[in-house]
Amino acid sequence: MQKKPIAQLLRTGQPDETVTIQGWVRTKRELKEFAFMEVNDGSCLANLQVILNPDVPDYQTTLQRVNTGASVEVAGVLVPSPGKGQRIELRANSVQVYGEADPATYPLQKKRHSFEFLRTIGHLRSRTNTIGAVLRVRNACANAIHQFFQERGFLWIHSPIITASDCEGAGELFTVTNLNLNEIPKTEDQLVDFSQDFFGRQAYLTVSGQLQAEVMAMTFGNVYTFGPTFRAENSNTSRHLAEFWMVEPEMAFCDLQGDMDLAEEFLKYVFSSVLENCPEDMEFFNKRIDNSVLATADNIINNQFERITYTDAIAQLEKADRKFEYPVEWGTDLQSEHERYLAEELFQKPVIVSDYPVGIKAFYMRLNEDGKTVAAMDVLAPKIGEIIGGSQREERLDVLQQRIQNQGMNPEEFWWYLDLRRYGTVAHAGFGLGFERLVQFMTGMGNIRDVIPFPRTPLSAEF
Amino acid sequence: MQKKPIAQLLRTGQPDETVTIQGWVRTKRELKEFAFMEVNDGSCLANLQVILNPDVPDYQTTLQRVNTGASVEVAGVLVPSPGKGQRIELRANSVQVYGEADPATYPLQKKRHSFEFLRTIGHLRSRTNTIGAVLRVRNACANAIHQFFQERGFLWIHSPIITASDCEGAGELFTVTNLNLNEIPKTEDQLVDFSQDFFGRQAYLTVSGQLQAEVMAMTFGNVYTFGPTFRAENSNTSRHLAEFWMVEPEMAFCDLQGDMDLAEEFLKYVFSSVLENCPEDMEFFNKRIDNSVLATADNIINNQFERITYTDAIAQLEKADRKFEYPVEWGTDLQSEHERYLAEELFQKPVIVSDYPVGIKAFYMRLNEDGKTVAAMDVLAPKIGEIIGGSQREERLDVLQQRIQNQGMNPEEFWWYLDLRRYGTVAHAGFGLGFERLVQFMTGMGNIRDVIPFPRTPLSAEF
Repeated sequence: MQKKPIAQLLRTGQPDETVTIQGWVRTKRELKEFAFMEVNDGSCLANLQVILNPDVPDYQTTLQRVNTGASVEVAGVLVPSPGKGQRIELRANSVQVYGEADPATYPLQKKRHSFEFLRTIGHLRSRTNTIGAVLRVRNACANAIHQFFQERGFLWIHSPIITASDCEGAGELFTVTNLNLNEIPKTEDQLVDFSQDFFGRQAYLTVSGQLQAEVMAMTFGNVYTFGPTFRAENSNTSRHLAEFWMVEPEMAFCDLQGDMDLAEEFLKYVFSSVLENCPEDMEFFNKRIDNSVLATADNIINNQFERITYTDAIAQLEKADRKFEYPVEWGTDLQSEHERYLAEELFQKPVIVSDYPVGIKAFYMRLNEDGKTVAAMDVLAPKIGEIIGGSQREERLDVLQQRIQNQGMNPEEFWWYLDLRRYGTVAHAGFGLGFERLVQFMTGMGNIRDVIPFPRTPLSAEF
Repeated sequence: MQKKPIAQLLRTGQPDETVTIQGWVRTKRELKEFAFMEVNDGSCLANLQVILNPDVPDYQTTLQRVNTGASVEVAGVLVPSPGKGQRIELRANSVQVYGEADPATYPLQKKRHSFEFLRTIGHLRSRTNTIGAVLRVRNACANAIHQFFQERGFLWIHSPIITASDCEGAGELFTVTNLNLNEIPKTEDQLVDFSQDFFGRQAYLTVSGQLQAEVMAMTFGNVYTFGPTFRAENSNTSRHLAEFWMVEPEMAFCDLQGDMDLAEEFLKYVFSSVLENCPEDMEFFNKRIDNSVLATADNIINNQFERITYTDAIAQLEKADRKFEYPVEWGTDLQSEHERYLAEELFQKPVIVSDYPVGIKAFYMRLNEDGKTVAAMDVLAPKIGEIIGGSQREERLDVLQQRIQNQGMNPEEFWWYLDLRRYGTVAHAGFGLGFERLVQFMTGMGNIRDVIPFPRTPLSAEF
């Protein structure tokens, strides 16, 4: 008698089939003549309904033990279900209870719990419908990302987590050390003597794998990173995490147009793949969490993305029949309200804004011929806002050196990054996507802490 | 005129086909009447040979510029190759040189370089045959791992990198902090006041995602982690990294037998997949690095793994006609020489040793009925030694609490881990595999620093 996932039984199980399932009890209902229980094994959102007749061995004892949260193995026969919303159910021949869950203390009783409360039981919250669905969608999304790149010959590069360089000069870095903080060794100048630290210098958690991805693009052409990145930013918001996963493709022999093409193809692929692989979970989010998530996915999949330069976008915003909170002015960054106007009102579909002023973008973005803008691009989506940021990289040695100096950074620290421009340099481009933001937008979840298994935020590193 | 990867042209390109390639010059040979250059684009080990005739525009200038390391685009026509070892070559109609590489300073000239030297140019070493092949195999191996688990319905779980708990009590932890180390806040007792640190407590880099994987197995049944883990161990050896990637599947409703079955199926799958997807790179390793790597792979793929208990293994070692450096005694851990004897001499194929003495294994491993051994298993492979370590987990609350106390650890710190045994506990099992060790063994590379893009080791965090 083969054990089968409930997802498979609900899809293809046939009446009279003898099966064994293993899972956890979600609810139990006792009637006079018999009892029902709903069993979930995590393979899908839906539970399998199990009918317990009094001829099941140890019927009374079993009934007392199969409370919400108990782990069970049920052997029985599939029968057509008279109930609504389910094709089949399982008539139990025997029930084995592995582990009980005391109703007096088990925190996940049938009633609704707030997401805030669920975060305090991070080791149990995946057993709820919503967080369970999130983590299945998260997996499908991650798998789609790998498939997208692997099908196209991109190599997955594991960029380092511990780094001695601060990629974007963004600050907000975590220090990694094995010094005893109670007895920090000092130099003669009474500063920390990092030469005695594990790496012989101050080391940090990475904020981006881009610079290392560029190294690899200069060998393999097309590569991507998909790994954890960090910000020691004291932001207690629904969109910030101290630890999050980032996806960063990098392509040699590629300009900003190619970069935008890849970003558009990528988003369409990932949304399509998740809809295809998790239809039930996505329906659930649309029904219970945010009734626009399916429309948003559809909008991304089925529209050709609008492409507009930053300069033209500013012109559109200036003539918009609309009062913005933040002034619209060439040279300043677009605010969320501006981005939403462009994607939701003006074009009503995803928009790629390109060629931003040099003053508001990072040093490695390629300077355009006009000397005022750089070959950067942001993908803005309705209901979502900015979801991808990318650029063509500055491949000219002299220009890059100048940009580094202009930003007050030390070119010597970038010796190896500059070497890529000394030896066989080529036009290349890439982008970055915050993975949790993507999952958040895909599912409509309000707080980013609820789309990662174990969130790390200010004052919180439990579990 | 479509740009195509060289790997594709070498496989399926036809004479008279008009193509454009983009890549980097590996070598150039000037003859009297014309010149050759070998171009590599990272899509495969092999170069494409390009013939430069004097009728190519700017022939003389181009010849001067296409030195080793230069980036080029070549348009031309494929022709049958008269040379040995290549089916086709490319007769250039035009060559565009994007970036030169000054032969006077470019460190990667034609001669052989030591791996030690190559580590000092980590930003360029992927351009060599060996490191290039390693990183393609690494990608194929990583991809095979995801495919193996996804095909079997396992969810990829991103276990946290920053953690407040020390999973195995293994020590050797890196601290993660955003305190200013020059002005560490102190408590009244003159100890570090971690309440002022980012997470409000001391936080570390994870050494394993297993405990969190167990949380998720208790919801989804089958899950796996695949992410970076860390050891602040001052080991300057060819098999240690401070930062490395680990794969950790975890299965609910599974005992040690099921765990061993999965480990065997997993290794066979991954080795087969890499051989299938990187045959040329694997041939290269067998020819140039270690002439046993193909035989080792074959041994893993085509043998049923031997299974033996630790107790029986000790008996075999005791009666071996062999003098070991370390004494063989029930209760002590197997040494490398013992493991190699079992796998290479006695059985001459992979061996799974199970049921180790409780005293030498971690607290979470399930205590066997005999009270003396635990349901642990190690997979040992010829030429490789231990490659996988796993166990059935202790699912009984009282036994686990006792084990934690016996090890002098504080059960309160494990409150959530213990909760998994309070609510719906089930038999479960899993294993851990060091990803870089796997790649090292697969390729025969002598030093683990050469199978990860950017190695982190004592006193070294460059690039």
